[in-house]
Amino acid sequence: MKLNKKGLLVVISGPSGVGKSTVRQALFSMKGHKLSYSVSMTTREPRETESNGIDYYFVNQDEFKRRIAEDMFLEYAEFVGQYYGTPLDKVEELLDQGREVVLEIETEGALQVRSKMPEAILIFIVPPTKDALYQRLRSRGTEDDYQLEKRILKANKEFKLAHKYDYIVVNDDVHNAADRILAIIRAEHAKTSRSIHSYLDILEEDHA
Amino acid sequence: MKLNKKGLLVVISGPSGVGKSTVRQALFSMKGHKLSYSVSMTTREPRETESNGIDYYFVNQDEFKRRIAEDMFLEYAEFVGQYYGTPLDKVEELLDQGREVVLEIETEGALQVRSKMPEAILIFIVPPTKDALYQRLRSRGTEDDYQLEKRILKANKEFKLAHKYDYIVVNDDVHNAADRILAIIRAEHAKTSRSIHSYLDILEEDHA
Repeated sequence: MKLNKKGLLVVISGPSGVGKSTVRQALFSMKGHKLSYSVSMTTREPRETESNGIDYYFVNQDEFKRRIAEDMFLEYAEFVGQYYGTPLDKVEELLDQGREVVLEIETEGALQVRSKMPEAILIFIVPPTKDALYQRLRSRGTEDDYQLEKRILKANKEFKLAHKYDYIVVNDDVHNAADRILAIIRAEHAKTSRSIHSYLDILEEDHA
Repeated sequence: MKLNKKGLLVVISGPSGVGKSTVRQALFSMKGHKLSYSVSMTTREPRETESNGIDYYFVNQDEFKRRIAEDMFLEYAEFVGQYYGTPLDKVEELLDQGREVVLEIETEGALQVRSKMPEAILIFIVPPTKDALYQRLRSRGTEDDYQLEKRILKANKEFKLAHKYDYIVVNDDVHNAADRILAIIRAEHAKTSRSIHSYLDILEEDHA
């Protein structure tokens, strides 16, 4: 029996190259949870295999900017001239249905979520060592030295954001990391601050 | 890999009759943890089967009172003329060894722990319904109506202490409850406030 019936918003973030998306995939492949992801909105063109409302909500720049102005995003970012964002209304709908909503986003977006939805759970994924991350960034291989250097500089800056998060999860092993995130979700539901109201409701049902 | 290397002090408490000790037993029977319990000190006489330092530390009243005066207990209580307490030094020793120390104590002691060791994790075990608790108290059967009434009154008072705890865990099923406590322990180790220092140490080990 879960005392807190509203879903939790769980933000998975961390430095570039730490393996956020493999952790998120491992998390969704685990049993015994009601995790949802929220479909993002973007201004970039759909690829041939992509469907509107499934991979992304595709809108044009004017529409996206209007939505920014109307405060309709939980978080958004611009990347090489295109916008990407998380529509607030969709997230709230899922949370009200009691589903946990998982966002896997960059540090910039994560900190926007913190200010828009202070009750969100921010998880910072870290590598077991700094070297492990550098090695990972190098092994991607497709990038030239200049790009690599830029990514390392970015990661070094992002490392310092850990203190702004609720939890630090080491990605030593992707299944361990996913397992720790499930434990965090279970524990957060049991937190007195989230569950005291449902608990008081139980006390009201007093037939003794 | 666990970032926070110090053990956690986990206090299991809740209203009388909620099943604290069966939850604690289920918790210790689970795999994949390093849980310790701390041996209590008491002034009552040892039973034939009991050994000093294993079941209890047995001391006389003068010794116990001297230790109270010297602030050597994490918590203590008097019960029908005898004292029972948790020696602070033993708990600290285990925590420093990286072991999780579990105390299963009455609400009075739990609140003493809160003030002595604010970093302790206080877990309030609750029944799925109030009726379930009353039924449990009744089914113990050994007590007369007056004793039962007294216990129910006490439980009703204790119910109202939930807000002073960090977590509320429903004892709908003893294994579920124990499992939730393990999740809480894992999540607490990942909390940024506990793990940030070890994390910063990792960052210092920078050979790139």
